[in-house]
Amino acid sequence: MADLSIEEQDSLKQTAQAMADVAQVETLRYFRKADLVADNKEPDAFDPVTIADRAAEVAMRDVLAKMRPQDAILGEEFGYSEGSSGLTWVLDPIDGTRSFISGTPTWGVLISVRDADGPFYGLITQPYIGECFIGGLGEARMTGPQGEVALKTRSPRPLSECRMLSTFPAVGTKAERAAFDKVRDLVQLTRFGTDCYGYALLAAGQVDLVVEAGLQAYDVQAPIAVVQAAGGIVTDWRGRPAHEGGRLLAAANAQVHAAALAILQETPEG
Amino acid sequence: MADLSIEEQDSLKQTAQAMADVAQVETLRYFRKADLVADNKEPDAFDPVTIADRAAEVAMRDVLAKMRPQDAILGEEFGYSEGSSGLTWVLDPIDGTRSFISGTPTWGVLISVRDADGPFYGLITQPYIGECFIGGLGEARMTGPQGEVALKTRSPRPLSECRMLSTFPAVGTKAERAAFDKVRDLVQLTRFGTDCYGYALLAAGQVDLVVEAGLQAYDVQAPIAVVQAAGGIVTDWRGRPAHEGGRLLAAANAQVHAAALAILQETPEG
Repeated sequence: MADLSIEEQDSLKQTAQAMADVAQVETLRYFRKADLVADNKEPDAFDPVTIADRAAEVAMRDVLAKMRPQDAILGEEFGYSEGSSGLTWVLDPIDGTRSFISGTPTWGVLISVRDADGPFYGLITQPYIGECFIGGLGEARMTGPQGEVALKTRSPRPLSECRMLSTFPAVGTKAERAAFDKVRDLVQLTRFGTDCYGYALLAAGQVDLVVEAGLQAYDVQAPIAVVQAAGGIVTDWRGRPAHEGGRLLAAANAQVHAAALAILQETPEG
Repeated sequence: MADLSIEEQDSLKQTAQAMADVAQVETLRYFRKADLVADNKEPDAFDPVTIADRAAEVAMRDVLAKMRPQDAILGEEFGYSEGSSGLTWVLDPIDGTRSFISGTPTWGVLISVRDADGPFYGLITQPYIGECFIGGLGEARMTGPQGEVALKTRSPRPLSECRMLSTFPAVGTKAERAAFDKVRDLVQLTRFGTDCYGYALLAAGQVDLVVEAGLQAYDVQAPIAVVQAAGGIVTDWRGRPAHEGGRLLAAANAQVHAAALAILQETPEG
């Protein structure tokens, strides 16, 4: 991570919070509203994009234009905008659009900032519940209905006692699904459909593993920052950095990570 | 439904709300707490029962002992207790124990009251979010972070435009899974892991279908009351009453129900 002054760190934190605030307003304007229109980016793959998705990213970009015009932006909806600071904000205004249009409260707003080494500060927010999971720059905490709670991943245990979350079975190739199923057959419990919320729960010490594939860079950066700040480990299925997306293995600790990696690393590439 | 006076109806509503209140306190005492102990009712099936589950049912039974001692009780944790009124309260203190121990906010407290014809008033609550979905005795509404909202199921549309929720793929026989998959292949979108929360979202007009199997009587009674009050239809996979559990088909309207039933009714019994 770049050597940032306290003032610079505070500026980043305040900017992230300001973006979370406007994204909450914009997303809740449309969440569970009957007249929501879901466009179709890829007709054959059903990847819904909502008005809320776009409105929230516009609002977050407006915050950056005012508070941090020197930084670059990579947003899920409006792509890349250059900056001069060496820092890039990575934004996913609604991670889990399928969850969003189904009314499920496990979608989230992803806000993170990275340098050449990867993301070093991230927020995962769930606007409907009013939760914000924060990790990096010395912080590992969440705020929500039960007040402020420290984020800390679970202690080591055998796979047979581990709880796993995933957005599977909707995502992944046949080989990826087979590898995933091998892990699923060994763990105590697997829950599906969590999107970014799974990483928040991993950071909060509720589960031991999140295993996914087919992810984009904007899907993973905030989750990586939050999970790592809480003591977890995030890599791809070969144990390499996962900042650019693809296959993700996020674990509560080094032991659980190694046990899952031993299974997943045999998955053929591509 | 039995012919109940307004006073009697008010008594039932107040009692249900009082139970929801104590269940919220008892479940949140343990939700996302690190020291939660999950017992194992059936060692080979992993059916976790938490301290919270038992504490919440005890607290709800205490409310009934004070407010409605004349009614019978069927509770998930402590079984059947006789009454003299002809009415039976059906309680599931935590529907979705796997969700609960994973920290996911889609478990719920199920409270309903029935006579010989089945459930006629029900509550599905999500204590962490602070939501309560209410149906029956002239009511169809929810309260939550966005205030009070009327419950009304979605309008008819082809299966190809329908959204489906289910606790699958964790539950069901091979034949049930095959039938479920046939429906899944026809709908627009399927999300897993919702437990009782799926029925709440169906009543709230967010999705079109909930299809499940392997359910118990205490899993289905409150969902049936809430969905029916919001305009939906709930039967088993042969179109018969589903009050005793088993296979459930819950649909937003008669057209969607008929379209799904045509596929599911071919599933072999047993």
